[in-house]
Amino acid sequence: MSKELVTRAEDYSKWYNELVVKADLADHSAVRGCMVIKPYGYGIWENMQKHLDKMFKDTGHVNAYFPLLIPKSFFSKEASHVEGFAKECAVVTHYRLKNDEKGGIIVDEDAKLEEELIIRPTSETIIWNTYKSWIQSYRDLPLLVNQWANVVRWEMRTRLFLRTAEFLWQEGHTAHATAKEAVEETEKMLEVYANFTEEFLAIPVIRGVKTANERFAGALETYCIEALMQDGKALQCGTSHFLGQNFAKAFDVKFATKEGPLEYVWATSWGVSTRLMGALIMAHSDDNGLVLPPKIASTQVVIVPIYKGEEGLKKVSEVALDLVSKLKAKDISVKYDDRDNQRPGWKFAKYELKGIPVRVTLGERDLANGTIEVARRDNLSKETISVNGADNYIEILLNDIQNNLFNKALRRTSESTHVADSYDEFKKILSEKGGFVSAHWDGTTETEEKIKEETKATIRCIPLNNKSEEGKCIYSGKPSKQRVLFALAY
Amino acid sequence: MSKELVTRAEDYSKWYNELVVKADLADHSAVRGCMVIKPYGYGIWENMQKHLDKMFKDTGHVNAYFPLLIPKSFFSKEASHVEGFAKECAVVTHYRLKNDEKGGIIVDEDAKLEEELIIRPTSETIIWNTYKSWIQSYRDLPLLVNQWANVVRWEMRTRLFLRTAEFLWQEGHTAHATAKEAVEETEKMLEVYANFTEEFLAIPVIRGVKTANERFAGALETYCIEALMQDGKALQCGTSHFLGQNFAKAFDVKFATKEGPLEYVWATSWGVSTRLMGALIMAHSDDNGLVLPPKIASTQVVIVPIYKGEEGLKKVSEVALDLVSKLKAKDISVKYDDRDNQRPGWKFAKYELKGIPVRVTLGERDLANGTIEVARRDNLSKETISVNGADNYIEILLNDIQNNLFNKALRRTSESTHVADSYDEFKKILSEKGGFVSAHWDGTTETEEKIKEETKATIRCIPLNNKSEEGKCIYSGKPSKQRVLFALAY
Repeated sequence: MSKELVTRAEDYSKWYNELVVKADLADHSAVRGCMVIKPYGYGIWENMQKHLDKMFKDTGHVNAYFPLLIPKSFFSKEASHVEGFAKECAVVTHYRLKNDEKGGIIVDEDAKLEEELIIRPTSETIIWNTYKSWIQSYRDLPLLVNQWANVVRWEMRTRLFLRTAEFLWQEGHTAHATAKEAVEETEKMLEVYANFTEEFLAIPVIRGVKTANERFAGALETYCIEALMQDGKALQCGTSHFLGQNFAKAFDVKFATKEGPLEYVWATSWGVSTRLMGALIMAHSDDNGLVLPPKIASTQVVIVPIYKGEEGLKKVSEVALDLVSKLKAKDISVKYDDRDNQRPGWKFAKYELKGIPVRVTLGERDLANGTIEVARRDNLSKETISVNGADNYIEILLNDIQNNLFNKALRRTSESTHVADSYDEFKKILSEKGGFVSAHWDGTTETEEKIKEETKATIRCIPLNNKSEEGKCIYSGKPSKQRVLFALAY
Repeated sequence: MSKELVTRAEDYSKWYNELVVKADLADHSAVRGCMVIKPYGYGIWENMQKHLDKMFKDTGHVNAYFPLLIPKSFFSKEASHVEGFAKECAVVTHYRLKNDEKGGIIVDEDAKLEEELIIRPTSETIIWNTYKSWIQSYRDLPLLVNQWANVVRWEMRTRLFLRTAEFLWQEGHTAHATAKEAVEETEKMLEVYANFTEEFLAIPVIRGVKTANERFAGALETYCIEALMQDGKALQCGTSHFLGQNFAKAFDVKFATKEGPLEYVWATSWGVSTRLMGALIMAHSDDNGLVLPPKIASTQVVIVPIYKGEEGLKKVSEVALDLVSKLKAKDISVKYDDRDNQRPGWKFAKYELKGIPVRVTLGERDLANGTIEVARRDNLSKETISVNGADNYIEILLNDIQNNLFNKALRRTSESTHVADSYDEFKKILSEKGGFVSAHWDGTTETEEKIKEETKATIRCIPLNNKSEEGKCIYSGKPSKQRVLFALAY
């Protein structure tokens, strides 16, 4: 472990970048913009996958796998889709290397592909090309498929987890007989994402729809969940798209209805990615390091023994290992760190940096008193409790930490959500406080883009169940029927 | 469902190709050599992943994720590695597309990469380049990391699951302080693979080491497990490599020993892939379709009701759903197929084709008798049993099917393992019977390659714990100290 982190107040952006690396979550790689997800970070991602996958399966979805490489021509088939994705693609042009005369290796120009292949930036095209042969009749619908995969989008400015050239995600791609069913699916999956993010990541989210301008390339409607980070910037945590019949038409996917005639299929797609790792880090962590909600931490409790000599360790370990087995019986993941090549102080600092929710310290003096020391990472408080019933105590404590983190983030989000009734007020809030700004907007892309140009703020979403309210656009003064949420965003 | 399969006797190769597609395991895609893994096939792969991942974690390994793309220059750093992999790589040369004048899209020549990127065919190079910054001291060792990932090897002749341009796999990459520890790890992981394949896939395997000629590019020793398919051809099911210090030297990865001086790190790598799906299909299936061992089947039991009218279905369902919940309580995966838009005969044929281990039929007549009909897929036998205690009966039956499949495959493998003491005998066995041929070999690559040229047979492995036996090479007549296993192979 190296020196301390810069504080959030000093430099929030630097604090984040340092934390990701120092807490062993991820690392930069030798390939520009591509990250290495380290075991500690990957363990958290595996937990996210496990819970999400269960939620997908509980709502009737199955997993499948589609090719990494997509023929270039597929991207031209859905007009708005190509506009949205063609500019940031990794292109495979050759399929062989060969030795050159100097003993190095070079691309073999004889092995040029007839048609270039694109590394998937998202899989609508290859999947709908496949669905053409899977869907003939209404009996084949709905088709509820998800894929866990890596994708590549060539980003110029990258940041670990938040924006990387390659990232991991899941993409659901469903096919339905009616528009109504597809919209229901889109909304259902948004709710799955919202529940997951709130329950497991302890991050409160705003559920909403994107403006036309911010829609996914090829969608009729994009639903999203948005969360506020500690610096007052918003982060889009997940999206769910109602694609209408756009991809069915582009790839000619029709089905025979119960009544007979052929109709185009209705589609949705939805995804969350390793970006959620960025949200998790920024929502809860502090100047001492990572803070993890217990439900998503890969290790929930760490026990550090304090002892002198082998005999001392033996005595302490007896009590510690008994607690370990009691915690494991409660399905609590616990690590007993009895390594003798590092001092307790080093271990405390390390687990604090890594955000382990609960740290138990057990010394020889505790043994005599029948106690242990319990430290919680979320508020850094410590207390000495009886070792009898400590497993029950810790179980309750973990729940309390989970709830506390959610409530703290909820309070912060609520305190950082402001109302602006004039453009001056709007700009003042953005520059002085940040956060969400609820303001009237005239509904035009033109106004939206001007506000973005002038303030960098974007419309994060039109909240679902937004109340209608007559008003005037803060920018154009034109009439507006509802407020939308603006923010500076990642 | 379409027409029947061709039989194994008629055309084994065609039988396999048809079965993979008709049983809904995988499909060809629009991209040459890349497959789509369909939900039913992917569910089986997910089961494989689940069990293997647990075995990896139980042996102390953690998962991580490394970049898909590898700088071309990395491949030149380990001399034998580049020879083995450079000829079959997908090469990324550009990072952008643009619109052309005719409204199509073309590669943007202004977006050419300075150094080409290779889609990983395997990850030793990018991982060892990363390990350089992870490993400083003996305290950082051993490093026991696994990755679940997709890889691309540009194959000219592809077959679903057996040989595809893109495939899914796991690759373990471990780092150790001593050669001894690394060899132990290599052997331990081979044993994990062997146990997994035998216990879950019910496929008996031969554990062995490869000849120098068949070693992984960059390894000092390659261990493998080999299995015999029903057509008498061998299939390599998994490999575990002792890499010595080759990659540590190529990427300059040294560690400070306890005593102080710097030493190069010792390495292993090991992997199994979606090729195991091919092994699973070919080891057990028959002319009626897939046969799945219960421990790897995603659905172990299917219940098909036979009834007339809604009232009939209601009565039958009551009993069926009771059985469903009892089976679920035993952690048996069961599907109750009460769809009314397909006839029972259609369902029977479908589940037979898909290899569901146990099919339960429950008709109105059974209700009166308190019985159900139980059909097992492995030997196609049926019996009528009492519905009372049916859950216990089925639990035992599933175990019995698992054991029966393993024993059947073991018997077949043993009967298809022959001994040859002359080259004529060797060739006769290969052409008339196939299977493994145990024969003396003089230990030279020259002889190995001549035999391959003349017969297409390769040395599958030198079995572990091979007994030493003086003899003469069947090809050269030179002295030999042990027999090795030859076979035609996939």
